[in-house]
Amino acid sequence: MAESLPRVVVVGGGFGGLRATRELRKANVQVTLVDRRNHHLFQPLLYQVATGDLSPANIASPLRHLLRKQKNCTTILAEVVDFDVAAKQVILADGILPYDYLVLAAGATHSYFGNDHWAPFAPGLKTIEGATEIRSRILVAFENAERELDPAKRAAWLTFVIVGAGPTGTELSGALSEIANFTLRHDFRNINPSDARVMLVEGGPRPLGIYPASLCAKAAAALVELGVELRTNSMVTEIADGHVLLKVDGREERIDTRTVIWAAGVAASPLARKLADATGGTNSRAGHIQVNPDLSVASHPEIMAIGDITNCVGENGQPMPGLAPVAMQQGEYVAARIVAMAAGRTIDKPFKYRDRGSMAVIGRYRAVAMVGERQLSGLTAWLVWLVIHLMEITLFSNRVLVVIQWASSFFFRNRSALLITHETAARLAIKAKNDVAA
Amino acid sequence: MAESLPRVVVVGGGFGGLRATRELRKANVQVTLVDRRNHHLFQPLLYQVATGDLSPANIASPLRHLLRKQKNCTTILAEVVDFDVAAKQVILADGILPYDYLVLAAGATHSYFGNDHWAPFAPGLKTIEGATEIRSRILVAFENAERELDPAKRAAWLTFVIVGAGPTGTELSGALSEIANFTLRHDFRNINPSDARVMLVEGGPRPLGIYPASLCAKAAAALVELGVELRTNSMVTEIADGHVLLKVDGREERIDTRTVIWAAGVAASPLARKLADATGGTNSRAGHIQVNPDLSVASHPEIMAIGDITNCVGENGQPMPGLAPVAMQQGEYVAARIVAMAAGRTIDKPFKYRDRGSMAVIGRYRAVAMVGERQLSGLTAWLVWLVIHLMEITLFSNRVLVVIQWASSFFFRNRSALLITHETAARLAIKAKNDVAA
Repeated sequence: MAESLPRVVVVGGGFGGLRATRELRKANVQVTLVDRRNHHLFQPLLYQVATGDLSPANIASPLRHLLRKQKNCTTILAEVVDFDVAAKQVILADGILPYDYLVLAAGATHSYFGNDHWAPFAPGLKTIEGATEIRSRILVAFENAERELDPAKRAAWLTFVIVGAGPTGTELSGALSEIANFTLRHDFRNINPSDARVMLVEGGPRPLGIYPASLCAKAAAALVELGVELRTNSMVTEIADGHVLLKVDGREERIDTRTVIWAAGVAASPLARKLADATGGTNSRAGHIQVNPDLSVASHPEIMAIGDITNCVGENGQPMPGLAPVAMQQGEYVAARIVAMAAGRTIDKPFKYRDRGSMAVIGRYRAVAMVGERQLSGLTAWLVWLVIHLMEITLFSNRVLVVIQWASSFFFRNRSALLITHETAARLAIKAKNDVAA
Repeated sequence: MAESLPRVVVVGGGFGGLRATRELRKANVQVTLVDRRNHHLFQPLLYQVATGDLSPANIASPLRHLLRKQKNCTTILAEVVDFDVAAKQVILADGILPYDYLVLAAGATHSYFGNDHWAPFAPGLKTIEGATEIRSRILVAFENAERELDPAKRAAWLTFVIVGAGPTGTELSGALSEIANFTLRHDFRNINPSDARVMLVEGGPRPLGIYPASLCAKAAAALVELGVELRTNSMVTEIADGHVLLKVDGREERIDTRTVIWAAGVAASPLARKLADATGGTNSRAGHIQVNPDLSVASHPEIMAIGDITNCVGENGQPMPGLAPVAMQQGEYVAARIVAMAAGRTIDKPFKYRDRGSMAVIGRYRAVAMVGERQLSGLTAWLVWLVIHLMEITLFSNRVLVVIQWASSFFFRNRSALLITHETAARLAIKAKNDVAA
């Protein structure tokens, strides 16, 4: 049956790739979704795994299971390494995938802006493993502070530096401050967890820079009220084992810290460069592949790129933000475009992003949100955030569990998933080289 | 305040160590609980993490949080490496802990009976990491089978060998058979997951050998009905990359398989030998430390060992089974003994295990159970199992979530946590060296 149908290969099962795949469910095409992970990840809530509010399974769902009823789709777990656009083949680490239409939706990873040697000291938050690693580091830091007798070293264990005050950094710092001030408050004997410093470092003048200034000011006030030390106009010039150097107004400042979390920059998947090389396309400085107004790449109408791997320029002349709604709308667009092309038609209308709003949550019941032109903040924005995220997460996952876990976290301030896993504990805990207070 | 009180050090926060610690909550002692992990683990349900029914956080809870209200207890995350019984000190990897009374409750790990080179091919189920590793391997095996064109190789990916038909192996094989036959049934395009073979290999004549023969027969029948291939009287003589050799009635048999799970043997923590060396005590062949009838070690009344690290002999002359109730009752006993000794009294009565029953679950709604002298099986036993485990898990964890996840798994046969995490996916998936079926 599938032999004669046009073959569509979608690379990446994030918001864009999954939406494109699903939109093709009634099309006369044979879809192959390839991802090197077996799960779709609801990234906007990933920071809640890092803070122990949610378990990985609450926000991740196997792609194969999500697509089990879509008979025209095959899901494969494999690593894409290159493209042969002349032969119309996606090159896998262990095979090839022929295509008639190709959708590259491989997303972005975090970027240290050329300072990859910072990576071991400042993990980023893009994957489940990253989130559980950060969770372990945060908890191990409190453990080591509890056993540290030297006040300066103890203070370093209790200093948490989050680099980058975009939505992820803002949300993470708010949640971390709550952990220190509420969740852990009775758990230790030698330290007071609320002595912890949570620093949010931002190179620009305000947190959540993509929002209007008045909303940013509200976010900043909410962060300060939660106990977060907000350091704006502060560039990170070095991250090493035990400290961070900041440049503030031309002065250098040293922060002694054992826990740094990177929420500053993203770069497109390396596949963006591979595809640009293969097609004669071009990349942005951060590696995004440039697309035509119809999201096709270079002179290849059969190849499209969507989501965070692109730097699709909007009507305002700016690249579109790296948000799930952009990727999903692009997924819908390319699905419609493929259906049209397969039928011998073309779609003349370029892709246009309909901005329905965006939001960031700060702590337990505050958020800032843009809904169209309207600015919301405080509890109202938080409720809007909650409703929208619950609606979205129902689309694929364990809604009931997430609601219950959130409710439990909200009312009892008890986080259910404060586990140290992997070898992180062993690796980090031995850094505290002191006898224990009797 | 703590200076003048007797210092009790408890090594290990499993069922025994945690119970001993809690029982000391009103005693005039200063307790330090030391564990190299930050969480207590409800091990009887660990196999459900391996099969994607539960998330790690459902069955693990931070020790520090469990003990936050016990003011006379300090919890530390550290690795115990040795003992100096003359100086009355526990030696940590990074410090020392002085004690007046020592309770060793460091548990057991799985043992390959001298064949440690089998370990990479046959992970065991003792930790959260082991469980998520096994979960990943099971899922990756189905992924690779889906992409494998060679029928023999595909069959090897779809062959799962579980070594050891004790409670863990029995429960795991039943659940794995259900995954193949129900949970995954719509998820693949090229394979039928129910073609999977789930083999349960047991050296002895029957599964669940510690139970009466009639109950074992019921367990065997239930396993067969679930589609498990039960291979009794079969010794594993080799485990290698791609196959297992069995010895059955003197004949050698080769099973081609890519997924082997080790549920066969346990050995005491290496700390049992360290403590025996330090005290002049002795170890069993599997490394258990021998204890006196009052659970003290050698000629050291101030040092006690409880739980799976011991081979405490019961009234029947046999070592007590490695079950949570044994460890917990021993924890209560040593707590009472410490209180007595601290008050200058002694406890004359030796430790005696009150066997209230034991049980193993087989698949979705069958179990076998011994409750006192009574034998239960089928749905009745399963309901008893369910009620008891729910009651037990309430003592420390997220009961509501576990109930909901079980209910969801039971009624919809959908497992919520079928995630491949860590690098397992990348590591294993590249073994399938074939082009993909178009």
